[in-house]
Amino acid sequence: MRFHIALVGFGNVARRFARLLDESRDALQALDIDPVIVGIATRRHGAVFNAAGLGTSALNECLRLADAGHAVGPAFSEPAAGELIRQLGKLDSEARVMIETTTLNVQSGEPAISHVRAAFAAGAHVITANKGPVALAYRALADEAARRGLSFLFEGAVMDGIPVFNLVRETMPATTIHGFRGVINSTTNHILCALERGEDYNAALKRMQDEGIAEADPSLDVDGWDAAAKVAAMANVWLDANITPRDVVREGLTPQCQSRAVAARTSGRRLKLVGAASRRGTTLAATVGLEELPGDDPLATLDDQANAIEIHSTPLGRIVITQRDGGMEKTAYALLTDLVTMRRRL
Amino acid sequence: MRFHIALVGFGNVARRFARLLDESRDALQALDIDPVIVGIATRRHGAVFNAAGLGTSALNECLRLADAGHAVGPAFSEPAAGELIRQLGKLDSEARVMIETTTLNVQSGEPAISHVRAAFAAGAHVITANKGPVALAYRALADEAARRGLSFLFEGAVMDGIPVFNLVRETMPATTIHGFRGVINSTTNHILCALERGEDYNAALKRMQDEGIAEADPSLDVDGWDAAAKVAAMANVWLDANITPRDVVREGLTPQCQSRAVAARTSGRRLKLVGAASRRGTTLAATVGLEELPGDDPLATLDDQANAIEIHSTPLGRIVITQRDGGMEKTAYALLTDLVTMRRRL
Repeated sequence: MRFHIALVGFGNVARRFARLLDESRDALQALDIDPVIVGIATRRHGAVFNAAGLGTSALNECLRLADAGHAVGPAFSEPAAGELIRQLGKLDSEARVMIETTTLNVQSGEPAISHVRAAFAAGAHVITANKGPVALAYRALADEAARRGLSFLFEGAVMDGIPVFNLVRETMPATTIHGFRGVINSTTNHILCALERGEDYNAALKRMQDEGIAEADPSLDVDGWDAAAKVAAMANVWLDANITPRDVVREGLTPQCQSRAVAARTSGRRLKLVGAASRRGTTLAATVGLEELPGDDPLATLDDQANAIEIHSTPLGRIVITQRDGGMEKTAYALLTDLVTMRRRL
Repeated sequence: MRFHIALVGFGNVARRFARLLDESRDALQALDIDPVIVGIATRRHGAVFNAAGLGTSALNECLRLADAGHAVGPAFSEPAAGELIRQLGKLDSEARVMIETTTLNVQSGEPAISHVRAAFAAGAHVITANKGPVALAYRALADEAARRGLSFLFEGAVMDGIPVFNLVRETMPATTIHGFRGVINSTTNHILCALERGEDYNAALKRMQDEGIAEADPSLDVDGWDAAAKVAAMANVWLDANITPRDVVREGLTPQCQSRAVAARTSGRRLKLVGAASRRGTTLAATVGLEELPGDDPLATLDDQANAIEIHSTPLGRIVITQRDGGMEKTAYALLTDLVTMRRRL
């Protein structure tokens, strides 16, 4: 089955995804998935569109240009994303897909939420690695997708490519989820591990920025906003919470945490930034905060960029899924798994 | 969709499954699954069959009888399982399902393997919590199922109801698995934790037997056979290994492990019985053995009956799935998830 794909956002994740599609062509063919990238829209580096598909050489040229910080093509007269989505909607296609990877605005969720709405209006399925839509507008967007018979998938929004939403949806049918807790922000976990070792807070933060792991605005990580967005996303999907990141009781990291981190480690414990939510009847609690965990807590063993989420359910009790190795490539893989989910549904 | 189900084996897991089907009726209805138990075959406690379905009161009577150690009904003139499977095959049905939960024979895989073959011959799908068929005859049985267009599912064979086979099959498409390692036997892990605390080996083993966690023959657990069967099962499914438990290099537990367990714990490490397999090119290594793990290894944090498996793949790197709470009910849930998988396929 042919999937006509429009890439809205063309940063590291989207570019890695374009390459992964090519590398995975045999595996995708075995799954009857024939992906055709028809266009790219960026905020400041132009846009391209070809109804027949960009083709390998044009796509490679776009990748080369974007890697070097150049525009991928001439800008549309309209805002690029909106125009590309309109063009996608005009295609005669079995499966139109918008892949949204723009930068998160944790207060508004924009422009991602508008992109998702525009895609649905154009009859396109949506795959996003952006936490905004699911953290700020999950219920409305999921309802809209269901009404139109379209998919709204976002595996990459939490824990890169490690199955989180897929784990629950595909492998835990007929369970009731009561809550979850996790270490879900790599930058703050790296900083806390560095502080334990007596290293400098700002140096550790800078390493994460240099590696492209930290958000462009580091306060999104260290003030707990990224973790709060992830907590809101999972609470919305699993606990029917209908909250936004602002509803999450939130604590962040400061250089002053160092003495606490060192003291915890010395006594066999670990200081971790834990995101959690739980539901008891009609009461929902959602938090991001520093906790001193006993050494044998599965969340306590997470070093540097490792992440984990513990899910509490009936009848499975507590299960934990752990990502020991993070990275951009894994988020790109999450987009690919969403494409596979979509194929299974169609 | 109606599923005509024959229960071959009616021990704790099968009985819990029969009750779980009833408790989950609403959730199953939402998934368009209408399960009808048409028969039960046991080795020594008789058999029942009713082509129209046993019905609630007859099933409840069977549960009451079996809980009390009595026969569920008059024995068939033939061996009960074979006769029940033949009757199942004669039913006019969209979906015939045999659910196999007999006791494991780790050397031969019998009688489970014969039951699976008979079910396929009768046009029935197979769900089993028995490690034997997948540990000793996976390739032949999977090929046979594929030829006949039938399902062969066994989520409950490893880590109770925690998604292991489902995790890989449903949420990790287009990955290459290079290997895995895990703590996958609850009895030996409970004993090792007890030894660390200075407790007695035989008392710890007896606790697991009293709770129904240990196998009837404790050597299956303490000599590493149960773990070897699970390693063979996962290696056969994920690494195309085509091995049996006898091909797994195997080390077990003895009371003499205590000093090593205590010494490891004292130095911040944990002594664990680790099952592992990996493939490099055409070379496959499969082992069960005692390892002293550093305290921050995710496998080192597992207490008592907790289990975990770390899977190594491209592009996901190392991911770990951990079961913090084990138990019979979870194995019964695994059988239910296999029924859901089957429904999605049909």
